[in-house]
Amino acid sequence: MGSVTLLMTKIFLQNDLRLASWPSPRHPSAMTSELERLFEHLHFASISTDSTHAGDVRANAEWLKAQFEQIGLTSEIHETPGHPIVIARNQRVEGRSTVLIYGHYDVQPVDPVELWDSAPFEPEVRDGKIWGRGGADNKGQHFVHMLGAERILKEKGELPLNVIFLIEGEEEIGSPNLVPFLEKNKESLACDIIAVSDTGMVAPGVPTLGYGLRGITCLEVTVKGPKGDLHSGVYGGCVANPATAAARMVASLHDEGGKIAVAGFYEDVIPLQDWEREMWAQVPNCADEDFLKTIGSPEPFGEPGYSMAECLWGRPTVEVNGIGGGYQGEGSKTVIPARAMFKLSCRLVPGQDPAKVQQQVEDHLRAHTPKGVTVEIKKGHSGKAYHNDPHSKYGKAAQVALTKSFGREPVLIREGGSIPIIQDMKEILGADSLMLGLALPDCQIHAPNENFSVENFEGGIVMSQILLEQLASL
Amino acid sequence: MGSVTLLMTKIFLQNDLRLASWPSPRHPSAMTSELERLFEHLHFASISTDSTHAGDVRANAEWLKAQFEQIGLTSEIHETPGHPIVIARNQRVEGRSTVLIYGHYDVQPVDPVELWDSAPFEPEVRDGKIWGRGGADNKGQHFVHMLGAERILKEKGELPLNVIFLIEGEEEIGSPNLVPFLEKNKESLACDIIAVSDTGMVAPGVPTLGYGLRGITCLEVTVKGPKGDLHSGVYGGCVANPATAAARMVASLHDEGGKIAVAGFYEDVIPLQDWEREMWAQVPNCADEDFLKTIGSPEPFGEPGYSMAECLWGRPTVEVNGIGGGYQGEGSKTVIPARAMFKLSCRLVPGQDPAKVQQQVEDHLRAHTPKGVTVEIKKGHSGKAYHNDPHSKYGKAAQVALTKSFGREPVLIREGGSIPIIQDMKEILGADSLMLGLALPDCQIHAPNENFSVENFEGGIVMSQILLEQLASL
Repeated sequence: MGSVTLLMTKIFLQNDLRLASWPSPRHPSAMTSELERLFEHLHFASISTDSTHAGDVRANAEWLKAQFEQIGLTSEIHETPGHPIVIARNQRVEGRSTVLIYGHYDVQPVDPVELWDSAPFEPEVRDGKIWGRGGADNKGQHFVHMLGAERILKEKGELPLNVIFLIEGEEEIGSPNLVPFLEKNKESLACDIIAVSDTGMVAPGVPTLGYGLRGITCLEVTVKGPKGDLHSGVYGGCVANPATAAARMVASLHDEGGKIAVAGFYEDVIPLQDWEREMWAQVPNCADEDFLKTIGSPEPFGEPGYSMAECLWGRPTVEVNGIGGGYQGEGSKTVIPARAMFKLSCRLVPGQDPAKVQQQVEDHLRAHTPKGVTVEIKKGHSGKAYHNDPHSKYGKAAQVALTKSFGREPVLIREGGSIPIIQDMKEILGADSLMLGLALPDCQIHAPNENFSVENFEGGIVMSQILLEQLASL
Repeated sequence: MGSVTLLMTKIFLQNDLRLASWPSPRHPSAMTSELERLFEHLHFASISTDSTHAGDVRANAEWLKAQFEQIGLTSEIHETPGHPIVIARNQRVEGRSTVLIYGHYDVQPVDPVELWDSAPFEPEVRDGKIWGRGGADNKGQHFVHMLGAERILKEKGELPLNVIFLIEGEEEIGSPNLVPFLEKNKESLACDIIAVSDTGMVAPGVPTLGYGLRGITCLEVTVKGPKGDLHSGVYGGCVANPATAAARMVASLHDEGGKIAVAGFYEDVIPLQDWEREMWAQVPNCADEDFLKTIGSPEPFGEPGYSMAECLWGRPTVEVNGIGGGYQGEGSKTVIPARAMFKLSCRLVPGQDPAKVQQQVEDHLRAHTPKGVTVEIKKGHSGKAYHNDPHSKYGKAAQVALTKSFGREPVLIREGGSIPIIQDMKEILGADSLMLGLALPDCQIHAPNENFSVENFEGGIVMSQILLEQLASL
């Protein structure tokens, strides 16, 4: 760890400059202890989808409970039909506001492990980053909130508001047991606001407050033609080809310019507000050319009249996630496939009802089914878009915390992805979520070489401290 | 074999009625010997694509050579870089015409073997059919010609014209060594006409003369978008989706009615002649409703203004043989695939130049490549359509042979598939091919439970006898 210490010193100096407005003296040895504890957290191979790692998941939950207890909170492990949920809280004081801090201690699998530059569960610091599975998604991002609370407890002896930590162990497998848990415990989990660091920061040094997520609705379509694969010579030309029919159906979903051609698709969409479009046009690292560089596409493509950021964060989509039919191997096999399939997912924005959109897409596909084939349409999972007001008193508190900890005003963005649990918590607990993203664009979540910026780890601890103070003062 | 003999007797009686015009007395015991020898032929597991069967392929070639020698022809095995070619001939007499009889003794693999009702290489007769791999494709169909020659030799002591048998062992793997063999031996293989029984008979009792085959040209297209698969939430809506782009390209190939929309595609097509359309409208088992029943499609689909038979036998196609991109497994994976692909084959008709059509399709696809993706187009194999005049003197001789042996005038059809070797023989040897199809629609070639009608086996022997006499008399 010698080189880590050296590197840390360098980063402290940078942070000393950046965080000059933060009055608390920080001590290198305390910092090292915080990082070492994150390393312990990252040592657990808490892969929730792999039953052979069930023991690691549980051990991680036990370790986390002990950590919460060590900083002075009470903590419990709640069993579920799957992996346990860790709850920690301070002594509730009536009349104070309550913040619930959500995170997850489970991680994605590490395959293909040979592509990692260092072992996924042997964290190390190189080039200002903490490398290891779970660094960004989500251990590093929720652990800063625990460390922020610890700093306040060490300094003041108590937290200035009621705090509930909810750290689950099944986020990477779709949180199947969280909604029942929330419903069963909605009284004891009652809160005014939720803080979640499980999203992204648009660029290093640019604090980012997320106030919206897209919803989703999925469909799977099977196109059926002849009763078996046919020889394309013997039968080609007189029978509808299901692969061609599937292609025609997919092609019908958009017009040539990229606008969705499904009748009524846009009718409930709440338009982007002017302040959002102005704000998003200024967000660092999110201009069209930045996105193109990141994704390696030759040119933008999307709904005309919108920037790429606007298409991503504020406009709905219909995307093909998979299409298949016939022979896809090497060389040729001159067959007319008996069937073809495609999978669609629509990302939804505020105002849209997933069930309604799903039905509109189904109706469109049925109306655009070519002659000579039949279709089976299977409706998949759905989730509403989520949206809050970043200028509410809670949003402003988050903005202050981000500004003070990272040295500049945050950008206010929505995210293109969907985190169903945020909407679930809104519906069950009645509280909005402040999305305080700390993962940088190159953090490689779900992929080899996942990493978490040391600067954001340190800044995140400070941010969490200030956030708790700010929320307490409302 | 007791039940076989019983069954054979019944068929003899039927044939006695049907073939009343054929003067030669046929003897049940001779017939049984012929069928027994076909059974020997079918015992060889001469699977050309499977190197573990190379010994079976060779043993089959040796057996075939011995059969030809036994009936009084000279026979040789010609080595190739792959499986051997068996040649047999009678003593050449100058001034006589020469017929070359083409066939192949190799067979398709038998997987899935569990779907066979009897062992693929243990032939047996049930329900008037000879069941076993190679029965129809092609051992039964070429063996009748050897047996026809044998009957003449037994009766008359010599054949009435020069006969060359060319039975190859690599048809099922694309005849890779046949063209070089033809070119090297074009003098010794010189002939006036070629007889091939490797096609279909439209229905039981309906003799069928094929006079055309479609050509083919293939293309494979890869559509590339982002440098890697993208999360459809994080990036959906601002980037061209290669699966959608591939679908749009495929959809552009036809208009809504099923006509090919590639510029110039039809410009060199020789139109169907009136007699062909009239003839085809009368072909048993080839009305639209018959085809629909066979293929199990709900309704016809194809170029407007043509029957299904016309679309199959006389009009060109563009078919998708395979399409793929993104996630095709169970459930959902919300990804924007980095690439998608599709494979096309075009069936061509007389007049069309494969290279020109291939280029037209490529140009069309490039012109219809959506914004935001790039394409790679790989040109695949090509072969010209084949066509002869069924009313030529050779065609008429074949018609007489089919009429006399099967008791009614043959239907004259083209086939939708492609047999490149027919066109190769035309180009190298300068001779047309009479396609005397004996395989019935339910013969299951290339599939489990391949079978060959006993009636066609017997009728085919008679047909071959008459054909040789007819060709000799020209």
